[in-house]
Amino acid sequence: MPSPAASPDSLPSAGTLAARYRAVRQRSLALAAPLSAEDAMLQSMDDASPAKWHLAHTTWFFERFVLGAQAAYRPVNEAWDYLFNSYYQSVGPMHARSRRGLLSQPGLAQVIDYRAQVDARMQRGFEHGGFDADPALKPRIELGLHHEQQHQELLLTDIKHAFWCNPLKPAYRDDLRPSPGQATALEWIGCDEAIVEIGAPAWPGAGDAFAFDNESPRHRVLLPAHALASRPVSNAEYRAFIDDGGYRAPGLWLSDGWARIQQDGWTRPMYWDDDLTREFTLGGMRAIDPQAPVCHLSYFEAEAFARWAGARLPTEAEWEHAAAQVPVTGNFVEDDMLHPTSPCTTAPCRSDVAQGDFCGGASRDRTTESDIGEPATHVAPTPEPAATPPAHPHQMFGDVWEWTSSAYSAYPGFREMPGALGEYNGKFMCGQQVLRGGSCVSPRDHLRASYRNFFHAPDCWQFTGLRLARDA
Amino acid sequence: MPSPAASPDSLPSAGTLAARYRAVRQRSLALAAPLSAEDAMLQSMDDASPAKWHLAHTTWFFERFVLGAQAAYRPVNEAWDYLFNSYYQSVGPMHARSRRGLLSQPGLAQVIDYRAQVDARMQRGFEHGGFDADPALKPRIELGLHHEQQHQELLLTDIKHAFWCNPLKPAYRDDLRPSPGQATALEWIGCDEAIVEIGAPAWPGAGDAFAFDNESPRHRVLLPAHALASRPVSNAEYRAFIDDGGYRAPGLWLSDGWARIQQDGWTRPMYWDDDLTREFTLGGMRAIDPQAPVCHLSYFEAEAFARWAGARLPTEAEWEHAAAQVPVTGNFVEDDMLHPTSPCTTAPCRSDVAQGDFCGGASRDRTTESDIGEPATHVAPTPEPAATPPAHPHQMFGDVWEWTSSAYSAYPGFREMPGALGEYNGKFMCGQQVLRGGSCVSPRDHLRASYRNFFHAPDCWQFTGLRLARDA
Amino acid sequence: MPSPAASPDSLPSAGTLAARYRAVRQRSLALAAPLSAEDAMLQSMDDASPAKWHLAHTTWFFERFVLGAQAAYRPVNEAWDYLFNSYYQSVGPMHARSRRGLLSQPGLAQVIDYRAQVDARMQRGFEHGGFDADPALKPRIELGLHHEQQHQELLLTDIKHAFWCNPLKPAYRDDLRPSPGQATALEWIGCDEAIVEIGAPAWPGAGDAFAFDNESPRHRVLLPAHALASRPVSNAEYRAFIDDGGYRAPGLWLSDGWARIQQDGWTRPMYWDDDLTREFTLGGMRAIDPQAPVCHLSYFEAEAFARWAGARLPTEAEWEHAAAQVPVTGNFVEDDMLHPTSPCTTAPCRSDVAQGDFCGGASRDRTTESDIGEPATHVAPTPEPAATPPAHPHQMFGDVWEWTSSAYSAYPGFREMPGALGEYNGKFMCGQQVLRGGSCVSPRDHLRASYRNFFHAPDCWQFTGLRLARDA
Amino acid sequence: MPSPAASPDSLPSAGTLAARYRAVRQRSLALAAPLSAEDAMLQSMDDASPAKWHLAHTTWFFERFVLGAQAAYRPVNEAWDYLFNSYYQSVGPMHARSRRGLLSQPGLAQVIDYRAQVDARMQRGFEHGGFDADPALKPRIELGLHHEQQHQELLLTDIKHAFWCNPLKPAYRDDLRPSPGQATALEWIGCDEAIVEIGAPAWPGAGDAFAFDNESPRHRVLLPAHALASRPVSNAEYRAFIDDGGYRAPGLWLSDGWARIQQDGWTRPMYWDDDLTREFTLGGMRAIDPQAPVCHLSYFEAEAFARWAGARLPTEAEWEHAAAQVPVTGNFVEDDMLHPTSPCTTAPCRSDVAQGDFCGGASRDRTTESDIGEPATHVAPTPEPAATPPAHPHQMFGDVWEWTSSAYSAYPGFREMPGALGEYNGKFMCGQQVLRGGSCVSPRDHLRASYRNFFHAPDCWQFTGLRLARDA
Repeated sequence: MPSPAASPDSLPSAGTLAARYRAVRQRSLALAAPLSAEDAMLQSMDDASPAKWHLAHTTWFFERFVLGAQAAYRPVNEAWDYLFNSYYQSVGPMHARSRRGLLSQPGLAQVIDYRAQVDARMQRGFEHGGFDADPALKPRIELGLHHEQQHQELLLTDIKHAFWCNPLKPAYRDDLRPSPGQATALEWIGCDEAIVEIGAPAWPGAGDAFAFDNESPRHRVLLPAHALASRPVSNAEYRAFIDDGGYRAPGLWLSDGWARIQQDGWTRPMYWDDDLTREFTLGGMRAIDPQAPVCHLSYFEAEAFARWAGARLPTEAEWEHAAAQVPVTGNFVEDDMLHPTSPCTTAPCRSDVAQGDFCGGASRDRTTESDIGEPATHVAPTPEPAATPPAHPHQMFGDVWEWTSSAYSAYPGFREMPGALGEYNGKFMCGQQVLRGGSCVSPRDHLRASYRNFFHAPDCWQFTGLRLARDA
Repeated sequence: MPSPAASPDSLPSAGTLAARYRAVRQRSLALAAPLSAEDAMLQSMDDASPAKWHLAHTTWFFERFVLGAQAAYRPVNEAWDYLFNSYYQSVGPMHARSRRGLLSQPGLAQVIDYRAQVDARMQRGFEHGGFDADPALKPRIELGLHHEQQHQELLLTDIKHAFWCNPLKPAYRDDLRPSPGQATALEWIGCDEAIVEIGAPAWPGAGDAFAFDNESPRHRVLLPAHALASRPVSNAEYRAFIDDGGYRAPGLWLSDGWARIQQDGWTRPMYWDDDLTREFTLGGMRAIDPQAPVCHLSYFEAEAFARWAGARLPTEAEWEHAAAQVPVTGNFVEDDMLHPTSPCTTAPCRSDVAQGDFCGGASRDRTTESDIGEPATHVAPTPEPAATPPAHPHQMFGDVWEWTSSAYSAYPGFREMPGALGEYNGKFMCGQQVLRGGSCVSPRDHLRASYRNFFHAPDCWQFTGLRLARDA
Repeated sequence: MPSPAASPDSLPSAGTLAARYRAVRQRSLALAAPLSAEDAMLQSMDDASPAKWHLAHTTWFFERFVLGAQAAYRPVNEAWDYLFNSYYQSVGPMHARSRRGLLSQPGLAQVIDYRAQVDARMQRGFEHGGFDADPALKPRIELGLHHEQQHQELLLTDIKHAFWCNPLKPAYRDDLRPSPGQATALEWIGCDEAIVEIGAPAWPGAGDAFAFDNESPRHRVLLPAHALASRPVSNAEYRAFIDDGGYRAPGLWLSDGWARIQQDGWTRPMYWDDDLTREFTLGGMRAIDPQAPVCHLSYFEAEAFARWAGARLPTEAEWEHAAAQVPVTGNFVEDDMLHPTSPCTTAPCRSDVAQGDFCGGASRDRTTESDIGEPATHVAPTPEPAATPPAHPHQMFGDVWEWTSSAYSAYPGFREMPGALGEYNGKFMCGQQVLRGGSCVSPRDHLRASYRNFFHAPDCWQFTGLRLARDA
Repeated sequence: MPSPAASPDSLPSAGTLAARYRAVRQRSLALAAPLSAEDAMLQSMDDASPAKWHLAHTTWFFERFVLGAQAAYRPVNEAWDYLFNSYYQSVGPMHARSRRGLLSQPGLAQVIDYRAQVDARMQRGFEHGGFDADPALKPRIELGLHHEQQHQELLLTDIKHAFWCNPLKPAYRDDLRPSPGQATALEWIGCDEAIVEIGAPAWPGAGDAFAFDNESPRHRVLLPAHALASRPVSNAEYRAFIDDGGYRAPGLWLSDGWARIQQDGWTRPMYWDDDLTREFTLGGMRAIDPQAPVCHLSYFEAEAFARWAGARLPTEAEWEHAAAQVPVTGNFVEDDMLHPTSPCTTAPCRSDVAQGDFCGGASRDRTTESDIGEPATHVAPTPEPAATPPAHPHQMFGDVWEWTSSAYSAYPGFREMPGALGEYNGKFMCGQQVLRGGSCVSPRDHLRASYRNFFHAPDCWQFTGLRLARDA
């Protein structure tokens, strides 16, 4: 099993860190480049933020927690501390989240200038050893970069939702093109009961790679015998669920899920057109690719689909254990598709899977989907069952975040980071579900097997899909 | 009594109309000029609209109801019909009012270009007699210009609210300067019971000046004997109400008003700072001028103040009858103050009042405020009572819209305009109160004595104040 | 014109007052008698109150404002002051209106005992001259009796709504029987422009009959020329409105009304079954009598119907002037139908109308409905037009409260009653519409031509209907 | 380790079952006996139900799922199927939960008669072998009895909340008396890492004791090394949290918890008086016993307290493993206190703990609370530390339900019961937290170590407290 400590993400030297700083910061600007100042101000719901705010808040993070750690530091603009704090109660009050879209001023140009000023100050710090005296600073810079990468993804998901709210259905970019792939059989990859390790060592620590505090400590868990699907659920399979009356059958839904779809009249994934053949993407309205992973599902929808399919969602431990066996490859933001794709589109089929041992022993249950047990066997037959079932699952990383059945909570021995940054993750450990694997709008070097994302059960504006699991 | 038919507002010739069209349309652009594209997109509450939307909707009005009257007309952009319709159900469905702020596209530049294209088409119509064949068209153009003037005022009140929601409290314009005036005694101008005429002849009609349908027909009403205050209530007087515990005394308030101030924690006018010495204006935060009319009051606050002062609000008939005796002079948008001012600031004191008969007979009750009867006499004494009480009230027009005690409803014999434009006014005749006189952000030539504005009792983002009245 | 001062309702002597006290108090108990203790606790919406609460609050009114006026008075239970105060802020805080249904204790039996104790104390006062010393007390008793009569009506309307909320649709009484009548032509009764007097002299005053403060002062108004329908709109006529698509035509509705019926899915009067043939009554589900006045309409529905019919609602002055010409006869709570009935059911046809002069002059416009002017003439033809149009309208009192186009506001010269009882009416003068005439659940001796009832535009759980009017 | 299969709760014979049926059914009536018909109708919030409804719904459960399994069955009243179904979508539509308080009819007497009729029919079934043919029936009866026991507890918690909403703060029973005990030191009982079994075998099955489906299957979990507090947190300790500013320190709270206490103004447990010395109980207002377990905490409050105390909540597996070592003794509904009590009140101190091995090995961490680690050590010192730390925790059962850090979700291998009863538990597995151990209003024979209760994080109307845990 690969050691997490061997990851290239280990705490970098200042030189490396400076280079990474520039690269990450530059990408945020690049992602915002297709947006007008007006586009960058859109806030379409309380949960989403304007692109401009993402640009400013990520900058504030460095200014407040890195530059501001020096007592003599004078902020670029003191009044902005209130505007661009997100939820750090311990550093002071903040502008209401739901009203971020009301900040026409400072304008986008001012925010970009703010970024430049902070970047220049950071650059001086890198060049003159300004971050050497306090050992807390470099880890905070590293954290700030991962923080900014999270907001890069949010910038894209938030603007997608905002554009979808415009009756003109404008595209974020006109040059994006779909890359339809081919169907792949859904297969089951078994795993015997085993004690495995998941999670990451607490960071920062000697020699350890970056991980958020919520991923630590690395710890032992007992996995039950189970099987995991070889790939995410596809649009075609989800369409079969709809066609079979899935949205009209209360018995398939969690109680809260049924209440929600009744109340809000859900009959399909949020971005699907009502003819079920087209969907809204960052490239505008587009035909739905039947083979691509279904996307923008709420937990309620993912859970109902799994029940309909006679299966269940994986736990996060089951997911992580499988993911730790495969390299972090897939369809990421760098691939510039900005939409989930069929398997085999971005890489030679199966080449992303290191051959060999899975699950610490012989997979005892390599079967095609036609084996899905009674009572419900709904996943549509695939054209040509693979002759040789895969040893490892595909598309674990990228494409779509995969809902797990695990509620977001603390690992045994979890400790929040000290100080204000302890508010980063821990205080959200209630009422949310864990998602794993990253999406087509996640930066590749931001992800890892132990990464825990979390959203509320009704949320569907992230690139969220599912992979089936079942008891062995 | 001056005949309304003699007004210079009579239906103009095409030449005049074209000139007026250009002037009104140009002013909208001038009012939006201080705004960035981001500012122009702000929608701070459901009741308010983005400046950009005002610019677009007023243009759509001409395109839809004037240019579009020709069967062969091809719109500048068909998709915008849905976006820029406000509430005309009979011409089709529309974008939800509360979501106008989510339209980053079309951008401000596109909207300005849309204006230019429609203006050019209108210009061709003026030049080539395109509006001569259908007798309905010129009246619709005239209506469209008054419609646009209404939106000019809304553009200013809406952006004021939006900027106030920004913790930075940005100014709409940095070059606005207060013009403090001097105190003027509040005096009472009496009026005996009389049958008077109010309202305006139905327009369009032979020789008649423009008026909205809700001002017609001109009709007889019986005024009871009463007295009207010589000027609006001042900031100093309203401050005395606050200092006397006005916001804590349930007995002063309408039941709905008390519920509202309890629920939302109102303790002062919306734009006042909590130290009661500064207020938010279109020029930013500024010291409150004690002598200027108090502004941005809800009906609830105006009504409570009047009760505290031992007085009442005037009815709209009382107000109109008095206003018809004085010229339409005052502090308007053209004065470029964009804030209410003390009396005597914009014009030689009293010179705005034609000397002579008021109310069709001798004013029997010319008294200074110190005569305000029992039980409550709260309006603060003024420095030097005027030696000669005025025959006519001051500041009837401009400065602040004055809440009346009259609910907005149909005059006897009222007929809505035919067709879609019948939705302009009539369908709002429920649950709102009439305001009279215009404000410091109203265009001068948009106002007249018979003009009826209307808002809901809790509304306070318009420039709204009050003038006291009392039973004789 | 009959003088209001001649009314039999003049301030009674203590003997008369004591008798009236016993009668009114007894009727409240009789109205509650069909209810179980559980029924009497129902509160089906914030606007409605439990029957038990009505019984207790009306008792509290006498205890607080009459018995409690003596300094030495010891209440039956001090803790109940908080529970049974409705909205009198000046006598102290109160239990939240929306939570009256949560008071299982004191139980119904305790409340009935409370009534008995207060009645006994009142009786001693009547017998021993206890109300003679303070001249304010007898008027307060008189007011308290009218107050209790208002709550008698509310008790019935509130329990009707509560039972309707029970899927079993229980009847308040099983012994109620419909009394179908016969069709009567709708005719128009004209009235020339005239100055008339409406309202009632301020009460209490020398020799004056009881009236609420909101009915005073009696004052002069200028009525425009107009015509009033001879009877309320019938169920058959309202059914024609529904069948003609009335609920689907936005052009017929006030803006707020259209929003409301869209939001809540209204397609018919609240208590009508969806097959449009049966309705819920205090006697349970029952076939709709086509000839009976339509009932339980909101103002929105009444106003939309009038527009559809090419007519309008009357103003309250128009209504009152006509009503003052006819005796207070009709279908009241004493008739024990508890539902509106066809004309001619309870009294010999037309006998309720004094022959002679209407409107202070010759009625210039006595026409049958077939004269209803353009553009819309929707009121269904009646079987046999009356040979001689009536001089006075029918069914002005009883059956259904008639919505007027008048917003509820102060008459010129209005003064609230002094002290806490000033909160009775005046503080509600905003955002409501006036209704006139009483209903089939109003006590007969509680009504008069000047009586002003008021509810919000969406309210429809009272027995509310309409009578058409039109400009002459 | 005791085998769950040895429990006396194993599937009973018909004779035993009939006796148990009578006993359980009788207790429901006994619990409702102190209530008037009005009390029994109270519904103080959407989450709570009227006592009458509990009595009816539990009866409906037997009628629908046991008696109704016979095709020829004729219900006592067909219309009640709609009224008394709770949430079983698969058997048909149901009355809205939030409107159960509007059912004055059928009245309490009718519901009690309904119970008698169903009981008589059940009795005939027991006597005549009516439940022998279908093997599903006896398990359903057994389930129905446990279902009814759940509603017995809800009946008490719901009526407590309802009475608390009455400003008179009536007692459910006047004869309840507090039994103050003495302080007990909080000690820590350690447990090494171990693989343990939790859960219960799927029921019904050969020889197995009753358990709900959500407790199964019995399965292996890996417990991390940890320590569990010897007793629940006391009122005195919680008071120290309040006095230390716990409700004003955002850093102690989950994000949703902080938002909630800000929004609703929470400053203390729901039933505590604002002087922090008295609390509302089923016996009315009463002095708070400092040594008794703190009660009626939301998950938010429990979690914040634990953080303040430098500890955490236990997982449900940690809790269950410890609980499985001790007998099901404690303060239950049969003890007739109906309120949590100090330790040592109901039983000889420590006698409830079987001496011997805990946690499958030597407890390595038997310490008193003074050992609570850095950084926060807030649990107040106790008068006299125990000389010998306990081998097992006290008060695991009864007194208060103990919040765990575990979100309510499916065990590995979970299968819902087939048919409509599959809706019993599984569809609520989202967004709730697990509680363990039962309370002072739980029936003793309804509880077991594997029992999983679940509520939402803000809920505090159940008898909910907490026990601290910490990482070893």
